[in-house]
Amino acid sequence: MTQYVAPVNDMKFVLNDVLQISKFSNLPGFSEVSDDLLDAILEEGGKLAANVLHPINHSGDKQGCVRHDDGSVTTPEGFKDAYGIYKEGGWQGLAFDPEYGGQGLPYILGVAVSEMVSAANMAFGMYPGLARGAADAIYAHGTDEQKQTYLPNMISGEWGGTMNLTEPHCGTDLGLLKTKAVPDGDGAYKISGQKIFISAGEHDLTDNIIHLVIARIEGAPDGVKGISLFIVPKFLINEDGSLGERNGVSCGSIEEKMGIHANSTCVMNYDEATGYLLGEENKGLRAMFTMMNEARLGVGMQGMAISEVSYQNGAAYAKERLQGRALDGAKEPEKAADPIIVHPDVRRMLMDQKAFTEGARAWMYWTALHGDLHTKAEDEGTRQKADDYMGLMTPILKAYLTEKGYWHATNAQQVLGGHGYIQEWGMEQFVRDARIALIYEGANGIQALDLVGRKLMKDGGRAWQAYFAEIDEFIGDNQDNEDLKPFLDGLKTAKERTLEATQWFGANAMQNFNNAGASSMDYLHLFALTCMAYAWAMSAKAALEKGEDDEFSRNKLTTGRYFLERILPDTGAHLEKIKTGADSMMALPAEAF
Amino acid sequence: MTQYVAPVNDMKFVLNDVLQISKFSNLPGFSEVSDDLLDAILEEGGKLAANVLHPINHSGDKQGCVRHDDGSVTTPEGFKDAYGIYKEGGWQGLAFDPEYGGQGLPYILGVAVSEMVSAANMAFGMYPGLARGAADAIYAHGTDEQKQTYLPNMISGEWGGTMNLTEPHCGTDLGLLKTKAVPDGDGAYKISGQKIFISAGEHDLTDNIIHLVIARIEGAPDGVKGISLFIVPKFLINEDGSLGERNGVSCGSIEEKMGIHANSTCVMNYDEATGYLLGEENKGLRAMFTMMNEARLGVGMQGMAISEVSYQNGAAYAKERLQGRALDGAKEPEKAADPIIVHPDVRRMLMDQKAFTEGARAWMYWTALHGDLHTKAEDEGTRQKADDYMGLMTPILKAYLTEKGYWHATNAQQVLGGHGYIQEWGMEQFVRDARIALIYEGANGIQALDLVGRKLMKDGGRAWQAYFAEIDEFIGDNQDNEDLKPFLDGLKTAKERTLEATQWFGANAMQNFNNAGASSMDYLHLFALTCMAYAWAMSAKAALEKGEDDEFSRNKLTTGRYFLERILPDTGAHLEKIKTGADSMMALPAEAF
Repeated sequence: MTQYVAPVNDMKFVLNDVLQISKFSNLPGFSEVSDDLLDAILEEGGKLAANVLHPINHSGDKQGCVRHDDGSVTTPEGFKDAYGIYKEGGWQGLAFDPEYGGQGLPYILGVAVSEMVSAANMAFGMYPGLARGAADAIYAHGTDEQKQTYLPNMISGEWGGTMNLTEPHCGTDLGLLKTKAVPDGDGAYKISGQKIFISAGEHDLTDNIIHLVIARIEGAPDGVKGISLFIVPKFLINEDGSLGERNGVSCGSIEEKMGIHANSTCVMNYDEATGYLLGEENKGLRAMFTMMNEARLGVGMQGMAISEVSYQNGAAYAKERLQGRALDGAKEPEKAADPIIVHPDVRRMLMDQKAFTEGARAWMYWTALHGDLHTKAEDEGTRQKADDYMGLMTPILKAYLTEKGYWHATNAQQVLGGHGYIQEWGMEQFVRDARIALIYEGANGIQALDLVGRKLMKDGGRAWQAYFAEIDEFIGDNQDNEDLKPFLDGLKTAKERTLEATQWFGANAMQNFNNAGASSMDYLHLFALTCMAYAWAMSAKAALEKGEDDEFSRNKLTTGRYFLERILPDTGAHLEKIKTGADSMMALPAEAF
Repeated sequence: MTQYVAPVNDMKFVLNDVLQISKFSNLPGFSEVSDDLLDAILEEGGKLAANVLHPINHSGDKQGCVRHDDGSVTTPEGFKDAYGIYKEGGWQGLAFDPEYGGQGLPYILGVAVSEMVSAANMAFGMYPGLARGAADAIYAHGTDEQKQTYLPNMISGEWGGTMNLTEPHCGTDLGLLKTKAVPDGDGAYKISGQKIFISAGEHDLTDNIIHLVIARIEGAPDGVKGISLFIVPKFLINEDGSLGERNGVSCGSIEEKMGIHANSTCVMNYDEATGYLLGEENKGLRAMFTMMNEARLGVGMQGMAISEVSYQNGAAYAKERLQGRALDGAKEPEKAADPIIVHPDVRRMLMDQKAFTEGARAWMYWTALHGDLHTKAEDEGTRQKADDYMGLMTPILKAYLTEKGYWHATNAQQVLGGHGYIQEWGMEQFVRDARIALIYEGANGIQALDLVGRKLMKDGGRAWQAYFAEIDEFIGDNQDNEDLKPFLDGLKTAKERTLEATQWFGANAMQNFNNAGASSMDYLHLFALTCMAYAWAMSAKAALEKGEDDEFSRNKLTTGRYFLERILPDTGAHLEKIKTGADSMMALPAEAF
């Protein structure tokens, strides 16, 4: 059976040494984060993940969720108890505004805890994760009354939450949505329609579920300009805050999926359900994106988290399984064979994964820190730059981390050979679970299009220009650091290639929009590799400052060198492909497929 | 639900136009292959695949195999009937020696039929596939009596066959095997031990199953030098050829796996089972490799075949699903949205897959043709060169086609968005089934090691030198063909990079064997891309000869151009990685993982 141990040392290295969060004590919430508190949070979070959530990961997959004839859904054995422990621990409100019962700690710490939860039990993590996304949307767009009505119970974990976008005929293209909202004369609306693929749409973990639902108000414009967002609670709330009557929303069925079996993926039927407008009429998409952007980062995190947990289990097997001899002579001659970690190609898979996961963690946490800066920094310039970074990074992180996370789960499975394919060993579940992350919250192709079609151009390219300038400054500031040179060189080449590609889009995409689409995914990967190179350069700098006498630092630098040598070279191929444009990709008539 | 249509046009293009098999009518079996016969075989094979095998692919996955208390195993509904149709059609003996009831047709046609069977129903195809491998080993290494006893029934499909190698503590490292063989005094042996992961080890499709089992004869040397191969029939055969008593072999359990649920993966217990030595004592590994090499090509084929069938279903969805508008203006303005095939990133996934599958088909069939040349050519030189090529190509095809096939099944699933993750749509089964192909018959890392550690050096590098010389000759012969120039240029660059890498191994691997291991997988991919480039250059040449007025040829050339622009550039990154060697990969102590 699989194990999970939260990588607390690496998390602390990123938080304390790479990002030096103690320097941000001027931000609300940060000053409270003493070394002791940080240790306590990471250690307690790690225990929750390892001892409560991971032990029900495999059994949850085997059992799955069950929908009963009355439309209720039972989660797998142990999930309700585990959720109780999660709730009692106050984990849901860790980074939320104390006004509504949160602890007001930095967002970046919430992200670190999310990593542990997703790694230990991805299907479990989606229940509180979606509720948090819904709470954020209400917090950002709700009226005071709405906030007072819903947030305290969502933040305490008493109530769940969901995001209802997809309909059978409309996934990516939300403008096609058919769900209708009719004013009921009392200021509320009657919502009718069907939503599909609703994660955590119905379950037994919470007393109430607050659905956020996009729908078109009768008479609203066609397309995305007529989309509004509604709060539709499973149980209506009485004046005194107690639960009232059951609303007209129900789970029609749950999907049988490839993975994340322990999370209920529901068809939700809305039959004149009472809904309350959240934010402005016909501006639902904007409000929805508050929820969506956080969700996208969360999904990117899932990719990285599954890579971490599958790596841990692949590495453990590689250190125990005896098979064959090292190419350069027996390492454990007293045994029948050497452990397979002596074999270079086994190492390759593990080092690929280690270099990915550690780089991705530094990059993800760096991004999360900008989430804190965006909402908490005092000066407008810092807030704006942080917001720019978050917008730019969101699609890149989502797509790159999920694709690579999936691929690395596959590699970890490969380390186990035939055993990796057998269900009881647990490795194949990681692959099946990780697979969804490339699809939901905007399929990865949509992320690539968001990057080249929206994020690059926004405000005249301010976001990427600032990011590249920051990289240049980092390189400039550290150019006397001889030990850091390979990392700076690698970063510089990657950044230059990304800049060249960016300019190629400038020159070629406006004449033919298909050029932008055709090269968007390669560009996303090229950009991601630059971000990874920056994360690794920052990490290497911090490791060098700790000194090579420190074993952790030495291993960090070796892993970073592996990244430079074995992963970063892909930038050249991506650039070459980008520049070929749309011609051969778009030339075939549809019938030729 | 998924569909499969055998790509008969592309198969015929490869057989008739690219490889021009009619020119080989001097080889036994080839002269019989008239255009009519070829058409009949491909069309009937296509019908079998589409109408008999594919309809039970998804239901077979859902139901899986069931082992009963008496150790018998039932295959999913419809499998027995389908196998009956397969058997009656004479498909099992298509390319086998007529002396034992085969039809003696070219091996390359057998490979084409295998593609259809694997694409339509991979789990089904493994039953006859493993029997064929076992029959080949008996044909190559058996005594006349053994051949007469077993082959006619194996070739007719009356009896099945398996390959029993793996034990709980030994997979790759067969030298560790513990299964014992004790002479019974009558010229036979008593075999005792446990084998695991035995595909098709027990089932209800055939009256008898002929297991080939490796074991160590009492007193034989340790390690791989003491391995012998035995024929262990499930039912012993009476003098008159009828089935005799049940042998001491039974299925102890079947594994619950990630995929290929319709194929029984058995734990096989041998309890003083009667076994007959196949080939020489202590030379079992050699005999086993006869079986293994064919099996490895078959597994590579599975990768390509799953890519084909998943591509077909991804493309069908992309042409029907309406979502969003083309970037360069609505293509079907009368509809609510355009079909998603107008979106460049959807095309990218499909074109990647199309360019892979068509190139891989030409390369695989080219290799199969060398299988015919190896066994049937009159002159020794041709036979030897063909054997060299088969040996060189086997690990490359196995690993590259399975890895890419799996990846492309994932991409086809991605085209369907959320629906791709839902079981009833059938796309996720392709991914789960394809996944095993990277593992079994020698995990892909072992293939890479076989390539750099054995196949490159063999006979002083004769195989790769001849292959590169053939490529040079092809480039030289066609240098006046202006239309072919991009293909020749791409091939030349790829070949030169592969040559440079080969020389790097020559200079660096002997001093440090870990350099060979560390760069083996990148080298395998680099070499594979050269083979793909050669396959595409040959295909483009054939398409140009047919003329660009021909729609098929035009599409072929576009797809080939896509390969050059969007897939082949990876060669540069592989070469760069190869040259970094083993240092950063091997530096970490095992405890650091």
